[in-house]
Amino acid sequence: MVLKLLKGSILLFLLVDFGAATAQTADDSVLIRRLADTILTDGKAYGNLSVLTKKVGARLSGSAGYYKAEKWGVAALTDASGSAGKVYLQECMVPHWVRGGKDEAFFEWSDGRRPAKGVRKSLDILALGNSVGTGPAGVTAQVVLIHDFDELERRKDEIKGKIVFYNYKFNPLFIETFKAYGDAVRYRALGPSRAARYGAVAVLVRTMGEGVDNNPHTGALMYNDSFPKIPAAAVGLRDADALAAALEGGRNASVFLRTMAHMLPDTVAHNVIGEIRGSEFPDQYITVGGHLDSWDPAEGAQDDGAGCVQSIEVLRALQAIGYQPRHTIRVVLFANEENGGRGGRKYASAAKEAGEKHLLGLESDAGGFTPRAFSLGLSDTQLAVVHPWLTLLQPYGVYEFVKGGGGSDVSPMKPELGAVVGELLPDSQRYFDLHHSRADVLENVNKRELELGAVNMAALIYLVDKYGFGQ
Amino acid sequence: MVLKLLKGSILLFLLVDFGAATAQTADDSVLIRRLADTILTDGKAYGNLSVLTKKVGARLSGSAGYYKAEKWGVAALTDASGSAGKVYLQECMVPHWVRGGKDEAFFEWSDGRRPAKGVRKSLDILALGNSVGTGPAGVTAQVVLIHDFDELERRKDEIKGKIVFYNYKFNPLFIETFKAYGDAVRYRALGPSRAARYGAVAVLVRTMGEGVDNNPHTGALMYNDSFPKIPAAAVGLRDADALAAALEGGRNASVFLRTMAHMLPDTVAHNVIGEIRGSEFPDQYITVGGHLDSWDPAEGAQDDGAGCVQSIEVLRALQAIGYQPRHTIRVVLFANEENGGRGGRKYASAAKEAGEKHLLGLESDAGGFTPRAFSLGLSDTQLAVVHPWLTLLQPYGVYEFVKGGGGSDVSPMKPELGAVVGELLPDSQRYFDLHHSRADVLENVNKRELELGAVNMAALIYLVDKYGFGQ
Repeated sequence: MVLKLLKGSILLFLLVDFGAATAQTADDSVLIRRLADTILTDGKAYGNLSVLTKKVGARLSGSAGYYKAEKWGVAALTDASGSAGKVYLQECMVPHWVRGGKDEAFFEWSDGRRPAKGVRKSLDILALGNSVGTGPAGVTAQVVLIHDFDELERRKDEIKGKIVFYNYKFNPLFIETFKAYGDAVRYRALGPSRAARYGAVAVLVRTMGEGVDNNPHTGALMYNDSFPKIPAAAVGLRDADALAAALEGGRNASVFLRTMAHMLPDTVAHNVIGEIRGSEFPDQYITVGGHLDSWDPAEGAQDDGAGCVQSIEVLRALQAIGYQPRHTIRVVLFANEENGGRGGRKYASAAKEAGEKHLLGLESDAGGFTPRAFSLGLSDTQLAVVHPWLTLLQPYGVYEFVKGGGGSDVSPMKPELGAVVGELLPDSQRYFDLHHSRADVLENVNKRELELGAVNMAALIYLVDKYGFGQ
Repeated sequence: MVLKLLKGSILLFLLVDFGAATAQTADDSVLIRRLADTILTDGKAYGNLSVLTKKVGARLSGSAGYYKAEKWGVAALTDASGSAGKVYLQECMVPHWVRGGKDEAFFEWSDGRRPAKGVRKSLDILALGNSVGTGPAGVTAQVVLIHDFDELERRKDEIKGKIVFYNYKFNPLFIETFKAYGDAVRYRALGPSRAARYGAVAVLVRTMGEGVDNNPHTGALMYNDSFPKIPAAAVGLRDADALAAALEGGRNASVFLRTMAHMLPDTVAHNVIGEIRGSEFPDQYITVGGHLDSWDPAEGAQDDGAGCVQSIEVLRALQAIGYQPRHTIRVVLFANEENGGRGGRKYASAAKEAGEKHLLGLESDAGGFTPRAFSLGLSDTQLAVVHPWLTLLQPYGVYEFVKGGGGSDVSPMKPELGAVVGELLPDSQRYFDLHHSRADVLENVNKRELELGAVNMAALIYLVDKYGFGQ
C-alpha cells in the first residue's frame, strides 16, 4: 500500500519541519466521526433549508420575505443551540431595492422589419439589482454590441443615445468557475456607469454563467455617481447569443426595454445571531455564517440558504454530541450580502466596538455542493500548523487548504478585528448555472452534498476551538 | 506560500525514494492544458450526450433502442477519430429481457380495510431487471417486512406463500455512496432467490438510494437456479417508508403485484469500437470505454451515456490537438453491462484470442460528475511511478490515485490480458439519486462536470501512452 505509506511519510516530513504541527490525536478523528454521524443521519440542514426555501422563499433586503426569514432564523437557531444557547438580532440599516414589476425586452430591426427567422424577438431579462428603471413607457434605442471594455473605449463616440449590450462571455477555461465570474462580473457591476459616461441610455449585459438554459441571472450593479444612472438588465445566455448573432456584422437593430426597478429609502433589518458560550474563553469568539438575504427570482437555495443552514447545523451538531466548546461559537445569518454588504460590516464594527477578540470568521457562500477545500487567511507558519488537519478532513471531502481569505460577509472581520477569515470552497461547477436566477431552488440542492459541507465546517470549527492557529 | 512549498517538498521526497517517478516535463502540462482547452471550448461530449439521450433514449440489451445506439456510436466514433480512425462492431450474444408492460402494485390491510390515513395505497415500483413476471392476473399475498438477511433466516418459517419486502436502508454513513450501494445491493441481487428458498411468492425491495424523491430504481437481480424464480420489484423510497410504517409492529397487510416482465431468448448485439493506430507500438493497446446499454425507465444519461461520450471525447481531443499516440488507443462502447456483462467479457476474450497486448483498460461508469480520483489496479511500485502525475491532474480535479480495480466492463481485461484496469472516480453524492431510475436524464448532467471527467481521462491516457507504468 504505497499510497498509504506515502501519506504517512508526508505527515512525518511535516512533523520534522514544523514541530507542533500534528497536535491532533485519534480522539479528534473519533469526535469528527461523531459530528459526521449526527449530520448525516439526524441532520437538520436539509429540513431547515426546505422550510427556508418553500415557506419563506425569496428574501431580498427590505422585502417582506426578509423579515419572515429573520423569524425563521431565530427559530432555527433557538432549536439548534438548545437551552445553553443565546439567540438575538443585531440591527443594521439596509438598502431597499424593488423590482417593481415584470421586466420586459424585445428587439427588432431598426427599419421595422421583423427579426430573421430563428431569431427570437423577445429577450428573457432581469433588471440588475440596485438599478433604476425605465418607467412605464420603457426605452427604445439602437443597440451597440460591445464585447469588452477595450471595445467600448474604441467606440465611445458611437454610444450616445444607444443601448449598450455587453456580450462578454464566461471563460470556460477557468477550471474554478469563481475565477470566470470574477473575470466577467465587472461588466455587470461597472458596465452600466461606464456606458452612461458615453451617453448610453440603458445597458444589457450577458448573464454571468455558461449554463445550457436561458435563465437570466440578476445581481448588483455599482453606479458611479459621476455619471447618470441608467437602467440595466441581464439577458439569458441563449437570448444573448441570438441578439449577438443578429448584431454581428454591424447590422442595426433596436431594443425595447422596460423595467420598473427603483430604490426606496434605506430601512432597518437584522443579522440573526445564535451562540453557545465557551467554557474556557467565553470572551473569545469563533464565528461561522452565511447570508440570510437572497435575490428575488427564486428561493435563494444555494445562494445562500445553504450557507445559513450549514452554519446552524454546525451549532446543532456540536450540541448534539455534547461537545463543550472552549471558545464562544457564534452563528451569524448576515443581512444584505447581495446588494450592500451592510450586515457583514455591521457585525465586524459592532464586535470591534465591544472590544471582542475573534479567532476565526468562517463563511459558506459558494453553495452547498460537495466540499473540496477551505480558503484561509493564514500566515505561512499558521498554514503549516493546520496542514496536518487535512488527514482528518479528507475522509469527508476536503483535501486542501487554499491560502486566501473569506467571503464578503466575514472579510471585514480581518481589518476590524484581526480575525482569521476563511470560507468553504465546495465544488464550483454548478454554482453559476443557478446563481441569482430562477433556478436557485431547493430541487437543485443535493441533501448529502449540503450535509458534507456542514460536516467539514463543524470539523474545522472544532479543530480551531481545540488547537487554535498556533499564534 | 508554505502550501506550495510543501507540495514541492513532497515531490522531492518522491523523487528521492522512487527515482524515475517524475519523468513528466513542463511539456506534459502544456499538452494536457491543450486537451483541456479543446474539451472545454470545442468539446463534443455534451452534444453527443444530447443526441444519445434525446434521439436514442433508453437502450436495454435487445431493445430497438440498443441497435439505434449502436448506429449512433458508429457515427460518433467515426466523427471523433477522423480519417486516421477505424470504427467497427464486435458481435456478442446478449440476454434479452423485456418489461412487457406497466408495473403495478398496491397494498391494503388483509382484513379488507383501507390503509390508515396518510398511508399511500399504490406503490411506485419497477420490476427488477431479468426478473420473471406475475402474469396478467398478478399476485396478491400477505407481506412480510424483513430488514436484513439475518432476520430472513430467523423468520424463515413465516415466509411461505408470502411476499417478502426487504427494507434494508442505504447507509448514509458511508461517505462514498458506492460503498453504501455495495452494502445494500445484495438485497436486490440475491434477495429474491433467498426468499424463494423459503417459499416466498414475490419480493419487493427498497430502492438502492437515499434521495428525497419516490422514484423506484430498477437493476438486475441474479436468480439462483436451485430455487423457483419469483417476481421481484423495487419500491420507491417514500413508498417503502410508508409500507414499512404500515407493517411495523407486525400488523397484517397484503400487496397486489403485477409485472409482465420476462426473458426472451438471447440475441445478437455489438460492442462498438473506434481506434487510432499507435505510431510506435501499433500492436499494444490502451482501451477506454463506457457501456452503451442502459436501463429502460429513462435515457441512461449518467449511466452510462456519460462514460460513452467521455471516452469518445478522449479520442476526439487527442486528434484535435494533433497528438500521435505511441500505442493504439481504442474506445469501446460496451454492450450489455447492465444485465449480463457480456460485452466486457467478449472484448477481453476476443483480445486474448487475438494475442493482443494491453497496457490499460480504463472505464468511466460512475457518472459524469466532477472528477476526484482514479482507481487503478497497480502494484506498489507502479503506484509510486504514477503518483507524481497527480500534480498534472490536480488543476483539473483529480487529486488522488486509489489502489483498486476497474469497473465491470474492463475488469475481465485483467485476468484475460494481464492489463492494468482502472476507472474514473467522480464525486459520488448524486449518482444514486438517479441511477436506474426515471431521473437519469440529460437535465441531470452538468456539462462542465462531464467535460472535466473527459479532461482527466484524456490526460491519464496521454500519460500512460507516453510513460507506461514502469513495468
